Amino acid sequence: MAEPHVVIVGGGFAGLYAARALKSEAVRVTLVDRHNHHTFQPLLYQVATAGLNPSEIAAPIRALLRGQRNATVLLAEATAVDLAAHTVQLADGALTYDYLLLATGATHSYFGHDDWADRAPGLKTIEDALEIRRRFLLAFEAAEREADAARRRAWLTFVVIGAGATGAELAGSIVEVARHTLEHDFRNIDPALARVVLVEGLDRVLPSYPEDQSVKARKQLEEMGVEVRTGTRVTAIDADGVRLGESERLDARTVLWAAGVAASPLARSLGVPLDKAGRVVVDATLTVPGHPEVSVVGDLCHLEQDGELVPGVARAAIDAGGHAARNILRLVRREGLLPFRYRDLGAFAIFGRARAVGNAFGVKLSGLLAWLGWLFVHLLFLIGFRSRLFVLLQWTWSFYTWNKTARLITGPMPAVLLAGPVSRHPESPPKAVDAAARTN
Amino acid sequence: MAEPHVVIVGGGFAGLYAARALKSEAVRVTLVDRHNHHTFQPLLYQVATAGLNPSEIAAPIRALLRGQRNATVLLAEATAVDLAAHTVQLADGALTYDYLLLATGATHSYFGHDDWADRAPGLKTIEDALEIRRRFLLAFEAAEREADAARRRAWLTFVVIGAGATGAELAGSIVEVARHTLEHDFRNIDPALARVVLVEGLDRVLPSYPEDQSVKARKQLEEMGVEVRTGTRVTAIDADGVRLGESERLDARTVLWAAGVAASPLARSLGVPLDKAGRVVVDATLTVPGHPEVSVVGDLCHLEQDGELVPGVARAAIDAGGHAARNILRLVRREGLLPFRYRDLGAFAIFGRARAVGNAFGVKLSGLLAWLGWLFVHLLFLIGFRSRLFVLLQWTWSFYTWNKTARLITGPMPAVLLAGPVSRHPESPPKAVDAAARTN
Repeated sequence: MAEPHVVIVGGGFAGLYAARALKSEAVRVTLVDRHNHHTFQPLLYQVATAGLNPSEIAAPIRALLRGQRNATVLLAEATAVDLAAHTVQLADGALTYDYLLLATGATHSYFGHDDWADRAPGLKTIEDALEIRRRFLLAFEAAEREADAARRRAWLTFVVIGAGATGAELAGSIVEVARHTLEHDFRNIDPALARVVLVEGLDRVLPSYPEDQSVKARKQLEEMGVEVRTGTRVTAIDADGVRLGESERLDARTVLWAAGVAASPLARSLGVPLDKAGRVVVDATLTVPGHPEVSVVGDLCHLEQDGELVPGVARAAIDAGGHAARNILRLVRREGLLPFRYRDLGAFAIFGRARAVGNAFGVKLSGLLAWLGWLFVHLLFLIGFRSRLFVLLQWTWSFYTWNKTARLITGPMPAVLLAGPVSRHPESPPKAVDAAARTN
Repeated sequence: MAEPHVVIVGGGFAGLYAARALKSEAVRVTLVDRHNHHTFQPLLYQVATAGLNPSEIAAPIRALLRGQRNATVLLAEATAVDLAAHTVQLADGALTYDYLLLATGATHSYFGHDDWADRAPGLKTIEDALEIRRRFLLAFEAAEREADAARRRAWLTFVVIGAGATGAELAGSIVEVARHTLEHDFRNIDPALARVVLVEGLDRVLPSYPEDQSVKARKQLEEMGVEVRTGTRVTAIDADGVRLGESERLDARTVLWAAGVAASPLARSLGVPLDKAGRVVVDATLTVPGHPEVSVVGDLCHLEQDGELVPGVARAAIDAGGHAARNILRLVRREGLLPFRYRDLGAFAIFGRARAVGNAFGVKLSGLLAWLGWLFVHLLFLIGFRSRLFVLLQWTWSFYTWNKTARLITGPMPAVLLAGPVSRHPESPPKAVDAAARTN
């Protein structure tokens, strides 16, 4: 008899660790992902703010699984699952599974305002990070060329929507790059005057952290120069900026989205109960009710534990992926499924050099200690020795020099600054200026 | 009186070194480039074949000139020069100069076949390199999924057109990645079976090198596994491959262009004599005849010396940039212009690990010695300490592990492999396959 076929959809933390947990077992594993690389998502904001190179936080999935002979990696997009037929539909084919592990994660949600997506990109993939990096760096270039003071101000205003860990980290990192890295690069503007506004609808930053850590985080962010606006909702985003609440306008050419999360649309094809965010409601064994052969893990899964949702963090995804894989092996051996129990070992949010809050094994940290704890945890986490080594070197280097060298603007360039209208913001082109006249 | 205004157009080797040569002098310098970064072009092929990260061979021009207070960097595209009015036209403004230094370099020439550009991308910019990297890596992914043997073969066939240094280096690097780096990554294909064909219209590889070095280079390339086809012209390129000479067909999904060079179109706006490739014919002082205030340097310039064209290599551009800058200072001081003399200190072409030819200070090298010489020269060359350090580490690491970790496919992904038709090759979509069936 052929070995059972385990199909894993998604090569993020959950899917990748599930595949690894099946190494050397008597199953065939096919891991499907629409990207060729695994991404270390917690550090995406460092790519977005030019601190790290894409390849320092991403690695080809094939390379990560090359030593695992029972695993095949397929670069493909899964479009639907047929639970009755045991098939995963791809854009150009189909896979038949004996056991299925879904780990396609989540994307941004704009709370019904899908037109905001172009104005305020989110941060889930390497491509997202490169797009944000492009806009972030081009904003300073445009400001340098802008003769009109009000418009220059708008180019130097950055709004980050959502003050969870990603939003707070993005905001802190933008301030740091503006104040230190870019310090001597421009002649007509002072990048340190960049205004960074962190907007949060709830009443505190890092809403998922203990309250006293929210207070410390806010204090650190404000000391760094971030303008923190809690209890404030964004009600409109257009080419010129955002509207806050009923009437306040904020002129800003760069708006970043770190607020809503929506589960991958693949979940909808299952025809099983989903939560509000589109996550699959699984039972305690991480399987779809009535379908013990189908597990859902990572950000795609809705599991409550002690009355709270297991959070969408890397650690939870890794643990759940491994657990689901071991459960599949139990099914193969005709043993019963075991329930999953998430143990929260800690979380960190890092805003800048020695600016961080976090907790590990129940101990609350902030400032330099939290920063070091985070550094340690992330380096341990990073998959593959080379990445760890280079990331460590890169960080050490940046630490001593403030010099972020991944500062390339790639992608569509001339259309943005040069031919007049700004990409995606065609309404108000930057004014033509004679730079020669202004450098006197 | 205001200080004289020197406008430099182009931030490649020539423009950048010209700007640096004007440091601390009593002139205002404005350097205009349409990219925000200087690119170390001789290593672009390493980015194209996933050996290096973009930021390891490129650095923001602003950062490189940040310590030079008399220099302003402008991210802008120059569209024309008015010699009579002393102005450089930008897409959205104009610059008035007292002295002008043009260094906008060259782009690809498809010898009148502009429709080949999409089929066979060239390699001049970081964006070009990332596009080639994307196609190169996706070809293996497509082959892994392709059930039809002939089509799989076409995915695994790579044609490089032009066997100058860039073409030979690209071909060698592709073979090396296929045979070593990707060795264990696939399940359905053996990447080592990749066929790499290097096509050259002239009768030897590296036509600008001494003949005995061409012989050695060819031998090394063939030992590595490159199929070398000299004296062969490409007469057609379509979605399925290329036609060689009158009738030979070569089915290949990936075709790369390293053949023709055309000077930047800015030269045409000058209204002065150009050579066949569109380069500005300058006199021995590197200035436009009749316009001592306008210098043209780097790949944009046509200068003959001892009956031969000064070559379009980094060393010549650096020397000419510095020379032109010093000539401008002489004009400011009302001294006469000095003629430029290029001293050829050597050149290297590197195909792989210990596979190279070159000459330095008149000594001809090949194999390991040439490779080490090249490594040394390039590290010395690379601008900025951080780049040098990291590139050295990255190479050392790659040397011991064959592990190229910049192997990310970014950019438009799903459309290429997943939704059927291949990007830019819509005629013959890869067949849908059931990977599960084939991994038995």
